Amino acid sequence: MTVMDDLQALGSDPTHSEHGVDRSLTVKVIGAAGDHDGPLLRRLLLPMHPADIAELLQNAPKETARTIFNLIGEDLDAEVYAELEDELREFALEFIPATKLAQKLEDLDTDDAAAIVAELDDEDRAEVLAAASNDVRVAVEGALSFDEETAGRLMQREFVAAPLHWNVGQTIDFMRKTGEDLPDLFFDIYVVDPTMAPIGAIPVSKLMRARRTILLKDLMEAPEIIVDPETDQEVVAHAFQKYHLISAPVVDRAGRLTGMITVDDIVRVIQEENEEDLLALAGVRDASTADSVWSSVKSRLPWLCVNLVTALVASFLISTFQHSIEKIVALAVMMPMVASMGGNAGTQTLAVAVRALAARELTPGNSARIIAREVGTGIVNGAVFAMLLSTVAIVWFKSVLLAVTIALAILLNLSIAGFAGILIPLALKHAGQDPAVSSGVLVTFVTDLVGFVAFLGLATLIIL
Amino acid sequence: MTVMDDLQALGSDPTHSEHGVDRSLTVKVIGAAGDHDGPLLRRLLLPMHPADIAELLQNAPKETARTIFNLIGEDLDAEVYAELEDELREFALEFIPATKLAQKLEDLDTDDAAAIVAELDDEDRAEVLAAASNDVRVAVEGALSFDEETAGRLMQREFVAAPLHWNVGQTIDFMRKTGEDLPDLFFDIYVVDPTMAPIGAIPVSKLMRARRTILLKDLMEAPEIIVDPETDQEVVAHAFQKYHLISAPVVDRAGRLTGMITVDDIVRVIQEENEEDLLALAGVRDASTADSVWSSVKSRLPWLCVNLVTALVASFLISTFQHSIEKIVALAVMMPMVASMGGNAGTQTLAVAVRALAARELTPGNSARIIAREVGTGIVNGAVFAMLLSTVAIVWFKSVLLAVTIALAILLNLSIAGFAGILIPLALKHAGQDPAVSSGVLVTFVTDLVGFVAFLGLATLIIL
Repeated sequence: MTVMDDLQALGSDPTHSEHGVDRSLTVKVIGAAGDHDGPLLRRLLLPMHPADIAELLQNAPKETARTIFNLIGEDLDAEVYAELEDELREFALEFIPATKLAQKLEDLDTDDAAAIVAELDDEDRAEVLAAASNDVRVAVEGALSFDEETAGRLMQREFVAAPLHWNVGQTIDFMRKTGEDLPDLFFDIYVVDPTMAPIGAIPVSKLMRARRTILLKDLMEAPEIIVDPETDQEVVAHAFQKYHLISAPVVDRAGRLTGMITVDDIVRVIQEENEEDLLALAGVRDASTADSVWSSVKSRLPWLCVNLVTALVASFLISTFQHSIEKIVALAVMMPMVASMGGNAGTQTLAVAVRALAARELTPGNSARIIAREVGTGIVNGAVFAMLLSTVAIVWFKSVLLAVTIALAILLNLSIAGFAGILIPLALKHAGQDPAVSSGVLVTFVTDLVGFVAFLGLATLIIL
Repeated sequence: MTVMDDLQALGSDPTHSEHGVDRSLTVKVIGAAGDHDGPLLRRLLLPMHPADIAELLQNAPKETARTIFNLIGEDLDAEVYAELEDELREFALEFIPATKLAQKLEDLDTDDAAAIVAELDDEDRAEVLAAASNDVRVAVEGALSFDEETAGRLMQREFVAAPLHWNVGQTIDFMRKTGEDLPDLFFDIYVVDPTMAPIGAIPVSKLMRARRTILLKDLMEAPEIIVDPETDQEVVAHAFQKYHLISAPVVDRAGRLTGMITVDDIVRVIQEENEEDLLALAGVRDASTADSVWSSVKSRLPWLCVNLVTALVASFLISTFQHSIEKIVALAVMMPMVASMGGNAGTQTLAVAVRALAARELTPGNSARIIAREVGTGIVNGAVFAMLLSTVAIVWFKSVLLAVTIALAILLNLSIAGFAGILIPLALKHAGQDPAVSSGVLVTFVTDLVGFVAFLGLATLIIL
């Protein structure tokens, strides 16, 4: 691969230019990697923001990334590793000896350190944790003891707590003195009672403005939420959104403050959960721009196979009406319309339902009303298209009976599309499944079946 | 409607219980509204968090909401109005006199005040702004001078700036003295040069820990981004995500600091943009749990009409092969499979493309590689299903020629599905359109056409 090919592989989205990686710098980095010029790579990369370094590595040809990890991997900021996507991170970690990696973990918040350690195989993990400081090891093992996608994985052990009886001055002095041991960044300090239970929170901007003699208990407000580390991350994200939180305290089983969750992790969670829903609705397991053909096939073949089975069932049902189709070939011409309109209407309802479930707006309490609305919408849309399609049938095929058939079939299919589009995700949710996964294929299965069977069945009854 | 009916209309999602509105409180509120008991409503509602009040109002029967706005609307915190969804907010604002509303705006950040004023019709808007203080009027008019969905609308005019030559002690003393006029909450202070250009940012938690004699210029770091108010909100949101920002400075044309954007607004933007994409991909214009049948029909009928046209085109093309179908009815039986598999594969690619475009991972630089990957994925999946479906054709219809036909058709359609699924959103994006809107219908149009025409055309050539 020439340098010019490498450049072709790099992004240059103009909307990107306001922030992010400068293109000419990227050119230099690829050149320096091509020359295996470690000192130049250091000069170019190390002053960059870790997120920019990660972006550059993510978009660079694999060969460039390999050379960079190989030559200066140990000098890259720990944050760079925290920013990389899973696949590239796994690749990158192979270039760092366990002891060096253990040192890097010291610079990270618990959640980021745990995410990196989670990537290692058992042997490497044991080696790295053995080389890490006691604090880091305990914190990381603690985080990994919680399930993925729970609050425990998002939590950092670093936080600022002050006893109830302190005043503003004491608190600020304590923070000035402690210095290094405080988290890098924090936005609220938590006020704890003698059992270490968080009973109040004070935004730092409020603390700093207050007179030094004011007592914390007069300044604090009860935390909007207190998080159990086993809570699903989606629930936590919803609370952050609703209350506009910047951070939230996490407590252990005994109610003692053990960590905090900050909004930057929540932003990532919200983005990931939304992306998951969008992909799942389309029948894609997961996706990254870095995927190869092979990983793309792996993430899409399963749902296409399910779709094949449902399509075979539909074909089988159509075949039972072969006799009708042979007699009136117009049925073969019009039947895909009934199925396609139903499929689209069902997908619309499904998207509305999945959005509302994700936003926690669709609850057992209002679901009856929403189901009624969706069926109502299906009936209204069905009536509109029943009129339009029966007109088409009369004009095109000069057949009133065909017009009646298609009108009834489309009205039926769009009503059922509304019903299935909301009931299927609700049922999946009720059964503890992710409503975005698999509901798409089920809904179009229903609308295909109803579309073909209703149209061909009614035609057989009415026309033949 | 009885009280029990009202209760049925209210949510009780158990996963909701960790935060949010207590059900027994809701019962009391609905009862008090039924009795038109203003004092009781005040006692029940006013101590609640504004977001919880808004949630309760949002989920309550319209009659309850009306009574509450009518009786105690003027006493509700301004934040409650900021939290309501557009439709209910518009309804609520009718109950507040212009002068009272103008007073409420004083309590809000610029972006929230502007969002409320934007909801009013021209006459009410003029009245409210005339009644507002000079500061609020200028700030709100300033915000409304920017397009919707730009940084200018997200920006608040309240921020903390300090000159370059100050030290930590001076800055903290200034903030203690200014008190009231500072924003309620802030996370960074901006360091400005004599022209008011923001040249540095210091997190409040860092400022507070620093010794009083340290100069700001020794503590600050260059802001990760400096936002132009005309920037699209998605671009700003992407920068917040990438750099884990909590706030960012906004400058005017002359480069002077004029406001800041905070992460809580960005969280809302990320959620909204994601929801928009999900709904748009399914052909829904917008959706809310509060929608009636009528508004649901309005937001879905347009795309169903487009779908009708594409379905008619597909039917017309099928009709040109009537002769073939009459001879081999197995064609009618198998043709929906080819179209359906293609539609699903195309939708998968489309979802992957829309996600990558939204995440700014799909750029002109790497699009050639991604297009190649998608076509490659289509070819591999196509080959898999060509084998499976030709086996089906042989077993079911005992026809090698039909097997060859369907194998070729499915291979062709899945390859084109991959190509169309990525090229259509890229082309829409290139043309300045939202790639999530309308690409779904275009992609399935392509896969329907190719599916039917390729299968029936090849059958006519090969078998007949």
